[in-house]
Amino acid sequence: MKKLINSPENVVREALEGIALAHADRVRVSLDPFYIVRKDAPVKGKVGLVSGGGSGHEPMHGGFVGLGMLDAACPGHVFTSPTPDQMFEASKAANGGAGILHIVKNYTGDVMNFDLAADMLREEKIDVASVLTDDDVAVQDSLWTAGRRGVGLTVLMEKLLGAAAEKGADLANLKTLGDSIRATGRSMGLALTSCTVPHAGKPSFELGENEMELGIGIHGEPGRKRVPIAPADEIAEMLMEPVLSDLPFKHGDNIILFVNGMGGTPLIELYIIYRKAAEIAGKHGLKIVRNLVGSYITSLEMAGTSITALRADDNLISLWDAPVNTPALRWGV
Amino acid sequence: MKKLINSPENVVREALEGIALAHADRVRVSLDPFYIVRKDAPVKGKVGLVSGGGSGHEPMHGGFVGLGMLDAACPGHVFTSPTPDQMFEASKAANGGAGILHIVKNYTGDVMNFDLAADMLREEKIDVASVLTDDDVAVQDSLWTAGRRGVGLTVLMEKLLGAAAEKGADLANLKTLGDSIRATGRSMGLALTSCTVPHAGKPSFELGENEMELGIGIHGEPGRKRVPIAPADEIAEMLMEPVLSDLPFKHGDNIILFVNGMGGTPLIELYIIYRKAAEIAGKHGLKIVRNLVGSYITSLEMAGTSITALRADDNLISLWDAPVNTPALRWGV
Repeated sequence: MKKLINSPENVVREALEGIALAHADRVRVSLDPFYIVRKDAPVKGKVGLVSGGGSGHEPMHGGFVGLGMLDAACPGHVFTSPTPDQMFEASKAANGGAGILHIVKNYTGDVMNFDLAADMLREEKIDVASVLTDDDVAVQDSLWTAGRRGVGLTVLMEKLLGAAAEKGADLANLKTLGDSIRATGRSMGLALTSCTVPHAGKPSFELGENEMELGIGIHGEPGRKRVPIAPADEIAEMLMEPVLSDLPFKHGDNIILFVNGMGGTPLIELYIIYRKAAEIAGKHGLKIVRNLVGSYITSLEMAGTSITALRADDNLISLWDAPVNTPALRWGV
Repeated sequence: MKKLINSPENVVREALEGIALAHADRVRVSLDPFYIVRKDAPVKGKVGLVSGGGSGHEPMHGGFVGLGMLDAACPGHVFTSPTPDQMFEASKAANGGAGILHIVKNYTGDVMNFDLAADMLREEKIDVASVLTDDDVAVQDSLWTAGRRGVGLTVLMEKLLGAAAEKGADLANLKTLGDSIRATGRSMGLALTSCTVPHAGKPSFELGENEMELGIGIHGEPGRKRVPIAPADEIAEMLMEPVLSDLPFKHGDNIILFVNGMGGTPLIELYIIYRKAAEIAGKHGLKIVRNLVGSYITSLEMAGTSITALRADDNLISLWDAPVNTPALRWGV
């Protein structure tokens, strides 16, 4: 295991300390329990957006805390759900009096713990709603889920709902908007290599020199099948076709297209994937109105990519373009 | 070799096509010869900033083309200098009538070819100056250089000179500013793994399971020494101490601190390095006034990191904060 770490047990705490030092202009960090909150939280009269999940997917979610995106994020240990206590404290720190919206990726532990945290918040008379992401078309149920897994759409969800909350949308409207984003976004991923969880010390799974895992989960959970390694254009097709046919996206749709790197894949390769994905979108009569290319929801040092498509009307485009000021996404500010 | 590519010979062209599709709002791409130019180039009356070098270091340089940074970038094949012809055409496309500044990393091929391109431009009565980066303290001469290599400081140089050019600085002033940035910035890097050049098909060098290469070059050139793998805090010290003592940085200096990933290292690890690097800077009495954490000058999928420190006065801070709108760095716009 070759990593820039000190010890497996301190990875999350030390990374949080680094984030606190690097981004004190935008966020504050709590180390007991672990959470990251925007510097000016709670923002009075604004719905507080809170997400979280296991660490190892950076910059998600901590890198998305700040103006125009999340109010708070709670990181669990690597690939481990945060606790209800973390979610509760993060939500209280983000509570500006207009309620809390939890953005929850569909993994059993995350869903259960956010439910418990919501109960705790309601006992304190804080309004809570939640939006789920379950955009991964690769598999129906999986090792860690009932239903589909929440993956790349989460990044877009956090940006779009964050912009809406900043503009003053109330809790009910944010919930409705989030549900509609959930309903119209789809993703699928692929791994060329495994990743190594620090405290495990060895790769989560094994892939042969000429194999890749199609439909990989962001924790290395099995996907659809293991297939021989293929050229980038074929890989883009293997991901785009299931994504586009699942919704289905229709001729004339406007979409936001997100080509994501899994953590160990360099940017030059993501642009080669984007090139073909955009061509495929065009062949389907889809117009890419906005895009994102980079490693935003990762699986430690896994090599691979995922593609997310989201149907986007003028409202979503305007929310996408709205100012954002987080460690990982910033524009207009 | 596991990469998201179609064929080694098409990597650069196809990545450029992807960049053209993804970032048509900010840049235009020429495929014959290869260069990337900001969409509104040439900007009349503004000095044109042009850089370039071998591909494989993305997002550098193409990802830094746009308002407030480079006017044009010319990518060579992977780890191969671009040709004088490319540099000449890119410079002409960026020429708004106030002269051209070449930002050149100190590698023998780059230096020679930018010199030839400058001669060609002068024959067309275009004023040209150049600024060199040679910030890598690891080794004096190396496989591909006379003198020190140009590495991470190049990213900061392009941002700062880009902002100054946008504010109307003339060619002579930009050259002076660039030389002073060159004189006050230092870097050093480290590799945990090798990288594989696509057309070579095998790793550029071999590192044992428990080895790392201290002072690595961005093409995998040998560094200072091969040492046993160490905890992140020790790695941060192995990089920071030579960087800080070389200039030397002095108690009371303000610095911009840049912790860079080599391409295959996930962000969570870079924050662990940043944490210790910031602590070491503090112990030396340095104040970090701005920072950058992420993979901005990479070596394909190499795992590793580099650290760059630059002494920063109020003028540089203000240039750092100025608006930038490129594929890889964006704020204020």
